[in-house]
Amino acid sequence: MRYAVIGAGAVGGYFGGRLANSGRDVCFLLHSDYDFVRTNGLRVDSCRGDFLLNPVQAYREAAALPQCDVVLVGLKTVNNHLLPDMLRNVAGPETLVVLIQNGIGMEDDLQKAMPGVQIAAATAFICSSKTGPGHICHMDYGSLTIANYSCRDNTKLEAVVSDFKYSGVETYTADYLLTRWRKAVWNMPFNGMTVALNASTAELLANPSIRELIREQMLEVIGAAAACGVKGLEPSFAEKQLFTTDRMTPYKPSMKLDYDNGRPMEIDYLYSRPIAIAAAAGFEMTRLKMLEVQLRFLSNNK
Amino acid sequence: MRYAVIGAGAVGGYFGGRLANSGRDVCFLLHSDYDFVRTNGLRVDSCRGDFLLNPVQAYREAAALPQCDVVLVGLKTVNNHLLPDMLRNVAGPETLVVLIQNGIGMEDDLQKAMPGVQIAAATAFICSSKTGPGHICHMDYGSLTIANYSCRDNTKLEAVVSDFKYSGVETYTADYLLTRWRKAVWNMPFNGMTVALNASTAELLANPSIRELIREQMLEVIGAAAACGVKGLEPSFAEKQLFTTDRMTPYKPSMKLDYDNGRPMEIDYLYSRPIAIAAAAGFEMTRLKMLEVQLRFLSNNK
Repeated sequence: MRYAVIGAGAVGGYFGGRLANSGRDVCFLLHSDYDFVRTNGLRVDSCRGDFLLNPVQAYREAAALPQCDVVLVGLKTVNNHLLPDMLRNVAGPETLVVLIQNGIGMEDDLQKAMPGVQIAAATAFICSSKTGPGHICHMDYGSLTIANYSCRDNTKLEAVVSDFKYSGVETYTADYLLTRWRKAVWNMPFNGMTVALNASTAELLANPSIRELIREQMLEVIGAAAACGVKGLEPSFAEKQLFTTDRMTPYKPSMKLDYDNGRPMEIDYLYSRPIAIAAAAGFEMTRLKMLEVQLRFLSNNK
Repeated sequence: MRYAVIGAGAVGGYFGGRLANSGRDVCFLLHSDYDFVRTNGLRVDSCRGDFLLNPVQAYREAAALPQCDVVLVGLKTVNNHLLPDMLRNVAGPETLVVLIQNGIGMEDDLQKAMPGVQIAAATAFICSSKTGPGHICHMDYGSLTIANYSCRDNTKLEAVVSDFKYSGVETYTADYLLTRWRKAVWNMPFNGMTVALNASTAELLANPSIRELIREQMLEVIGAAAACGVKGLEPSFAEKQLFTTDRMTPYKPSMKLDYDNGRPMEIDYLYSRPIAIAAAAGFEMTRLKMLEVQLRFLSNNK
């Protein structure tokens, strides 16, 4: 199977790099890093073992990518409007597009724009960042959960999971809606609150009132998921997530990094879409809606 | 009638100064400004006419104040725990203490600490600030609403209103609970949101989503007031307050000034108390509770 990676940053670069490092055939779409990677390769400093890919099958233009069996999308969702154009050549009728992204609703939008394409969703539980051209640092964790959205070829999906496992990535499969909403239980409170209060997850949780507010926000996500018919996300999951976060190496969620570095925040898919979907199902996410409005204000007034 | 002013800052200094300037007998408790005011007097630059009081009946210690008929309290509520001690000498059994303060519950607390004292509540609609020692600048508005809390002598309360009117202050009377909760409709959204988002009232209202959030927060205050049995505060008051604020000279609410200048914020009486009172009456102020928690966090991490 031939893979392509679109969005070879902290997430796409790491997981695509793992596949390539285990001998899989992986093409990388690169923009600003293209020249550097052609010369120096792609370096991953990882808590699970460093590696350097050189040479790398690097491409500068999406239109130049060959047609692939699987496309891993590691773009920030703020760029998802570009996806149909970027996928035009690389994705044929049998290609599986795997969106390794945060948020809710990306698959619906891509499917609407490209009705024939086969899509899977993936959530990454990883602490990594791109620290320089062609250089990714992987600090902690590193698992992937993959969920089928519209893949008609189960063998291919299983092969992808198998390839990731072979490459050293802890890989799980789960129900699509459950995967997306479960991840939102952590993402929606922590991404926005670290921005709104300019604080780390650890600083937030050390304050008992903030901890309680975050628990209430988590329960809003769980309530919204239930209203949307998602099975298997229990209220007790909130407490488990708080406990897990207490034990995590403190780090800045991606939205906090985006905000601090002047990049656009993923407010649409992380907040506005799930809030709108929940509202349509009759569930009001009051606290997260307030957070969304604050984030939009901060984003406009940066 | 002899007046005392405790807390002769932007509010207490202005209203007490007006009374003194109209010939009333007014004693001022001063701390850091005492020496300056003894020498140079108290200067009020006011959009309704400048004046200079010199000499000023200035006192450095609360214990030195003579017993007065009326005590005007212009302290920030963060200092209200000091009030019983400060009032011990100046307030006799017939003295009326007028709390010109923002928040809910100050009268209950003072009454509990000093069961015999007679109390009135006052809300000021004024844009003023202390710009230097013994120097108050009054930029806009300047009205006072006075409400009886536990004054047994209606003649005295009427005399206070009459003295303020004679001194040039637009003065109204209203029901106690209505006065406090009506003021909270503006205070609770704007004080906290200008701090949380580091923005002026005008910047907040220019953003349609924030405007809607503030409207919802105002409706929470109106709903809480109704749950607490307050009559006469209709949901339509929210829209009127937004409209009034649109037409106001943009300025920073007192909590924003306190936060920006490193002073403690009046979170207890402006947020925690009304939220707790509403909760006890079965009404949850969800958005304002979230704002309260954010403010406490910002306050602790300044």
